[in-house]
Amino acid sequence: MSIPVETFFLNPEAQGTLQAQIQQMIAQGILSGRLRKGEKLPSSRKLAGHLGVSRITVTLAYTELQASDYLESRDRSGYFVSNNAPEPPQFAARHPRQDSIDWSRALGRKFTGGATPVKPRDWWSFRYPFVYGQTDPSLFDHANWRHCALRALGQKDFQALTTDYYDNDDPQLIEFIARHTLPRRGILARPEEILVTMGAQNALWLTAQVLLTQRRTAVAEEPCYHALRDILTQSRCHLAPVAVDRDGLPPEALPESADVIFTTPSHQSPTNATMPMGRRKALMARAREMEALIVEDDYEFEMSFLRAPLPALKSLDTDGRVIYVGSFSKSIFPGLRLGYLVGPEPFIREARALRASVYRHPPGHIQRTASYFLSLGHYDSLIRRMGQVFARRRKVMEEALAGHGLGVAGRGVFGGSSIWMQAPDGVDTGELDRRLREKGVLIEPGRPFFHAAEPPGSYYRLAYSSISSERIPEGIARLATELALMR
Amino acid sequence: MSIPVETFFLNPEAQGTLQAQIQQMIAQGILSGRLRKGEKLPSSRKLAGHLGVSRITVTLAYTELQASDYLESRDRSGYFVSNNAPEPPQFAARHPRQDSIDWSRALGRKFTGGATPVKPRDWWSFRYPFVYGQTDPSLFDHANWRHCALRALGQKDFQALTTDYYDNDDPQLIEFIARHTLPRRGILARPEEILVTMGAQNALWLTAQVLLTQRRTAVAEEPCYHALRDILTQSRCHLAPVAVDRDGLPPEALPESADVIFTTPSHQSPTNATMPMGRRKALMARAREMEALIVEDDYEFEMSFLRAPLPALKSLDTDGRVIYVGSFSKSIFPGLRLGYLVGPEPFIREARALRASVYRHPPGHIQRTASYFLSLGHYDSLIRRMGQVFARRRKVMEEALAGHGLGVAGRGVFGGSSIWMQAPDGVDTGELDRRLREKGVLIEPGRPFFHAAEPPGSYYRLAYSSISSERIPEGIARLATELALMR
Repeated sequence: MSIPVETFFLNPEAQGTLQAQIQQMIAQGILSGRLRKGEKLPSSRKLAGHLGVSRITVTLAYTELQASDYLESRDRSGYFVSNNAPEPPQFAARHPRQDSIDWSRALGRKFTGGATPVKPRDWWSFRYPFVYGQTDPSLFDHANWRHCALRALGQKDFQALTTDYYDNDDPQLIEFIARHTLPRRGILARPEEILVTMGAQNALWLTAQVLLTQRRTAVAEEPCYHALRDILTQSRCHLAPVAVDRDGLPPEALPESADVIFTTPSHQSPTNATMPMGRRKALMARAREMEALIVEDDYEFEMSFLRAPLPALKSLDTDGRVIYVGSFSKSIFPGLRLGYLVGPEPFIREARALRASVYRHPPGHIQRTASYFLSLGHYDSLIRRMGQVFARRRKVMEEALAGHGLGVAGRGVFGGSSIWMQAPDGVDTGELDRRLREKGVLIEPGRPFFHAAEPPGSYYRLAYSSISSERIPEGIARLATELALMR
Repeated sequence: MSIPVETFFLNPEAQGTLQAQIQQMIAQGILSGRLRKGEKLPSSRKLAGHLGVSRITVTLAYTELQASDYLESRDRSGYFVSNNAPEPPQFAARHPRQDSIDWSRALGRKFTGGATPVKPRDWWSFRYPFVYGQTDPSLFDHANWRHCALRALGQKDFQALTTDYYDNDDPQLIEFIARHTLPRRGILARPEEILVTMGAQNALWLTAQVLLTQRRTAVAEEPCYHALRDILTQSRCHLAPVAVDRDGLPPEALPESADVIFTTPSHQSPTNATMPMGRRKALMARAREMEALIVEDDYEFEMSFLRAPLPALKSLDTDGRVIYVGSFSKSIFPGLRLGYLVGPEPFIREARALRASVYRHPPGHIQRTASYFLSLGHYDSLIRRMGQVFARRRKVMEEALAGHGLGVAGRGVFGGSSIWMQAPDGVDTGELDRRLREKGVLIEPGRPFFHAAEPPGSYYRLAYSSISSERIPEGIARLATELALMR
């Protein structure tokens, strides 16, 4: 039986080459049972005419489908659905008729309803996106990343790509972190003291699971990264928020009961405060006195384009008290999901066992690609380029903010990618955000960063990591106009 | 100042092209502070002579390093470390002098010491590897995977590659799963009922976290996949093992107290039993009666090369009681870490929120690559090719086992990739494994699959997913010899 040419349609929204689209259309017809074994395909001339593509494109698609056994060609009579083609299912698919489960009872634990706000997924469609932590396509080193990914897909790296690492990491990546990344933060660590994670957030999550219980007290900075607050809340520990000042977390304000202190000394998140060396030492001394552990989230240390960064807290750690969290996702791109934990071996061992249970290991291909990108120096070039651009943007931003007399609450002395802002009294920045969206401006309201039951409504964050210098002045002008209207 | 050519050495174990190695050597020299700004590099002729490479290779490396701002060239006088080169750290790296933390006290929870055995990482160096769940490089469709990965790295897919999905998945992949994968199992699901996970193990982990508490009872098959047992143990629920028979999990043996039933109807892991349709219906009825949920791990359903698979339990589910776990890692390669969960929306919503907290989302590049590999039909070709090869290997294996009179405990009627074996009474298969390793044979002792305090020592698993047909007879012969010696 011949299949009528009229039954073939290319999906108008499909991507990829025409040849790939044709292959896909036919393969899916076979897999869904619409095209059956032994049925004859239209001639390439006929199908080409029907679809409005060149005949050679159809011929190439048929040849490919033959190679993968979807089709077979019979002498002079054309192409047929192969007898070895994959079988469609022999039963109809069904959807549950009704959901008769009482899910409010069936769920053992609830994880929805956390502090982390939902950001607009289409931030790039806003003209003035002062959003934080997203990739700026104009800065990313696409060519070299692609090159490294390709290399990591090569025959030589087959093992690294496909292997089930059980609970191990890519040795090349671990070596680079130990020999090149950590020394730049003043840290020496052995491979057994390093664990690769699915981004910094995953590193914080693993740490919270290993160190905290319902009977332990965790200190979080107030305000702090909302996802960390979700992690700590889910761990069910006692959560003690400690307000930061312009130098970050004040050691003298730590509660005696603290077991684990989560801190961001390089750039406090979200206020951008950098903890001075004196306070770092005082914090270490206070933690020792209280026998507390410290978890140092050293995110964004690379973005120190104004002044060289201070050594990490971990580098002052003489007794194995500090757990260090680093990330590559931030600077390469957030979709990468690659970070690491550095800590004493007994801790890393438990975090590794937990990781193995949760998801075994971060995909080998990603680890290997990153290790090439790092070791060939592309990462450092990227960081440098980003630093130069961010420095320029920041200058434009500061001028614009000063020009409109907008209140800066924290700007960070080393650089970073955002400025922490305070609106005039009485302005609710949640409302400000809603109004600005209609004007094409995206900001980040500050409330979700606070733990307090009645968080201050006047703070907000403006990032310059995803907006070009040229657009900053107009974006800030719109912000200023809206603020003036709301006062 | 000129840098002496003698200080340059290529790492004899380095991989990659010579040009890349030279770039790496110089970039790392700069990053570590060994080569300083303004210092002059040896001429390309001199360095080429010293390293024993061609001059053009050095010139190309220098040009690349100049492009990425590590080096600058000065007219006629050669290459110098650029003034814009990245800064080396300004402080020395230090390692904690002593670990003064009492980690037995500091750890909130322990995750080490689970049931999952450590397999030899170098399994491919054994001549007769009857190992389970590893990639056979001779079967994997490297070229097409590479092609799809490349396409997913293209400019068009930049968003999919780099975006922070927050808590969402790649819409292309979800659509493929909903429209093509699930219907083949008799399942219809909407996108909100599907969650992409880091492999099937991660899907099981998320499910256990959402559904179980210390007050709930989970049924696990006895024997069962050891990693599942680790997951259930860590969730601290009551764990009720129920012995399987030749048809899998017997519904009448389920304890009244069961809240969640974990089962593998397609191929019971590790016995390979396939649950007949009658029992599937009885299991559904029993679960309804007890108001229990069912978690169906449908791993390896694609490897049904002897007979078409039965519809999934989930396809019989009229009241939203079944949570379905699928995986691509198994058939593509385990290092991929890609699976999915299908279940009622209220459940998927909580699993998604938990996933967002634990690691946000599986990397976008991997999701997009898999969606191309699937939609272009490569996945089905691969499955078919694997099925044909596995059928051949299985035949050779069964003949060899029969020839030596070795006892088969479970072989699975639909296919699969392994046979569950029983050694004669008195033979400890842990000891058998140790002895066989010296003979180049790898088997999987059965004890870790059992929950019982005194698990039977006579079972073992032989997989044919990573050993060629040609080597199977000799491997089985060595096994038979060793068994005879141990009796």
